Amino acid sequence: MKSPVPFCSRLSIEEQRFWVNTLSEALPEEKILLFSELSESERASVEVAIVANPEPLELLALPNLIWVQSVWAGVERMIKELPTASFNIARMIDPNLSKTMSEAVLAWVLYLHRDMPAYMRQQKEANWHQHFVSQPEQRRVGVLGLGELGQVCAKRLLSNDFDVCGWSRSQKEIEGVECYSGEEGFKKVISQSDIIVILLPSTPDTNGLINFETVKIMKPGAQIINFGRGPIIEEEALLYGLNTGALKHAVLDVFDREPLPRSHAFWTYPNVTVLPHISAPTSPDTASVIVAKNIRAYRNLKMLPECIDTKKGY
Amino acid sequence: MKSPVPFCSRLSIEEQRFWVNTLSEALPEEKILLFSELSESERASVEVAIVANPEPLELLALPNLIWVQSVWAGVERMIKELPTASFNIARMIDPNLSKTMSEAVLAWVLYLHRDMPAYMRQQKEANWHQHFVSQPEQRRVGVLGLGELGQVCAKRLLSNDFDVCGWSRSQKEIEGVECYSGEEGFKKVISQSDIIVILLPSTPDTNGLINFETVKIMKPGAQIINFGRGPIIEEEALLYGLNTGALKHAVLDVFDREPLPRSHAFWTYPNVTVLPHISAPTSPDTASVIVAKNIRAYRNLKMLPECIDTKKGY
Ligand SMILES: NC(=O)c1ccc[n+]([C@@H]2O[C@H](COP(=O)([O-])OP(=O)(O)OC[C@H]3O[C@@H](n4cnc5c(N)ncnc54)[C@H](OP(=O)(O)O)[C@@H]3O)[C@@H](O)[C@H]2O)c1
Ligand SMILES: NC(=O)c1ccc[n+]([C@@H]2O[C@H](COP(=O)([O-])OP(=O)(O)OC[C@H]3O[C@@H](n4cnc5c(N)ncnc54)[C@H](OP(=O)(O)O)[C@@H]3O)[C@@H](O)[C@H]2O)c1
Repeated sequence: MKSPVPFCSRLSIEEQRFWVNTLSEALPEEKILLFSELSESERASVEVAIVANPEPLELLALPNLIWVQSVWAGVERMIKELPTASFNIARMIDPNLSKTMSEAVLAWVLYLHRDMPAYMRQQKEANWHQHFVSQPEQRRVGVLGLGELGQVCAKRLLSNDFDVCGWSRSQKEIEGVECYSGEEGFKKVISQSDIIVILLPSTPDTNGLINFETVKIMKPGAQIINFGRGPIIEEEALLYGLNTGALKHAVLDVFDREPLPRSHAFWTYPNVTVLPHISAPTSPDTASVIVAKNIRAYRNLKMLPECIDTKKGY
Repeated sequence: MKSPVPFCSRLSIEEQRFWVNTLSEALPEEKILLFSELSESERASVEVAIVANPEPLELLALPNLIWVQSVWAGVERMIKELPTASFNIARMIDPNLSKTMSEAVLAWVLYLHRDMPAYMRQQKEANWHQHFVSQPEQRRVGVLGLGELGQVCAKRLLSNDFDVCGWSRSQKEIEGVECYSGEEGFKKVISQSDIIVILLPSTPDTNGLINFETVKIMKPGAQIINFGRGPIIEEEALLYGLNTGALKHAVLDVFDREPLPRSHAFWTYPNVTVLPHISAPTSPDTASVIVAKNIRAYRNLKMLPECIDTKKGY
């Protein structure tokens, strides 16, 4: 008999049940259930689990787990919390997610490009004042992270006539986009960009990348969008940059602690836009189709999907 | 000797001087000057004037005026204020302007599509709440007015995956866009659109097009963007729609009176975004090149550019 497939997650129980239902519809031949619904013997039989920010102890309680399929794109936390895990991790790679993220990047780049924060402030004061409209070709956008999401975002900004450069660990080649890697490359991107878009994972190498040193070399009046992970930006350095006018505005979708605590300074900062981690939510519909494809390839052909190199940490 | 070319406008004197300078650089062979700088005999010699919302009396004081070149795209006010004028009117048709407008339409459609007004309100209350992200294919955008600007905007929305329909006086055909005309067509567009974008001129036929009757047939929760002209929307009807929840949000860039008076209700309405007529400002640089081309064709070949059919009123 086929082993059951648990859904392991720290989402609310309602959200977990919603996922179990959606996944069961996409995979009617599988027994998909909550971790808490597994019997002792079933736990021992589990070969594959589906996860969304899982409780590490639950995965460690599955002694014969071979691989997990995340329905989220970012799995850095799981890698960090399970340093000695022997199972493989497949993260969500969904073209639909890249599209949603590229839409968010375009939407909030245009938000900054067309001075929406200034017009909102002016409206509060009934202040009719026109700002000069820059051409997108005159606006350099630097994309930090050129992975599944970053590449699609860079291309979409380019096709909307922005001047785009980007940075990643390994050197990339993307037509029309000035690509950089390494520390020197980072400095180039940071110091030339009018708008910086962060699409990096959180790793020991990327955490604190935006710090007092790097804020100092940014273009005066630069604006920053963080759609990657909270720890990549040192909060104190960002606030310092915004206070001194070195930075003009920040759009933040990700934070060290989520939900962002009610007492946090970001909520009331006039030149910070706080978003509740909504730039690119996984779509259960399209993600379930991808999960189904991967689990069927495993059941029928014993094939694993592309898995994370946990040594890289993302 | 060549007649001088006056710049006639109700802009501030600084802005007028800026225009005269920019135009003189593009047309060094012409004598371009402010209306007030014309001598009596020069007035009689003027054949062509450049205008930006001109004072009607100034143009009437030019007895031999053959044509005027507007540096603005909208000339409805001039047509209305000079009903018996015998000179021809060429309005600004600048591909760069269409591009800037299509960027604005995309920017503020994304603003509504990605729930930015709700997230701004939530930030004020330190409220972490995620809204469902709709796919653009599920979002019908109705473009009212498919002229120089509307067509480019409809195509740009389409290439960003929105479901686009449009409406104009004469029937259009635009690949991928459902085009309508006539009263029945208007009702179809109005009742099916999640977001309505107004890119119509102000004429006796379009003024008050959005009124109590039409608000009633709009899709519940529809959102509206007016980048055309203020009078197209009846303010009372709009506020009624917003108050009752029939309409969710309005982005207004144009008003019956501009600047919008400080006491106007729009400034403080929570579901109105007030913009100070900035969706697509004329770029003096690119507009001057077009003016130069038109004036040279007239001087050298006695050719007039495409002129307005004043009977149409736009
Ligand atoms: N806010 C949201 O709603 C949301 C939604 C989904 C994902 N995300 C975040 O977005 C991140 C990116 O997702 P993805 O699918 O594009 O990941 P990915 O395909 O793994 O790409 C990550 C990119 O970051 C680069 N990178 C990693 N470490 C680096 C370093 N030390 N120096 C320079 N570049 C480095 C990688 O370089 P290489 O190409 O050389 O490997 C790669 O280009 C995820 O990790 C997740 O945290 C956020
Ligand atoms: N907010 C800003 O910054 C800004 C900047 C520039 C322009 N504008 C405004 O945008 C307007 C449109 O500019 P444009 O260059 O696209 O003008 P246009 O080329 O003259 O196009 C006007 C469009 O409106 C349609 N229309 C006119 N009267 C109509 C009626 N009674 N019923 C249905 N459709 C009607 C026309 O239909 P036909 O195609 O059949 O003629 C045409 O498609 C201008 O009039 C101006 O007021 C605003």
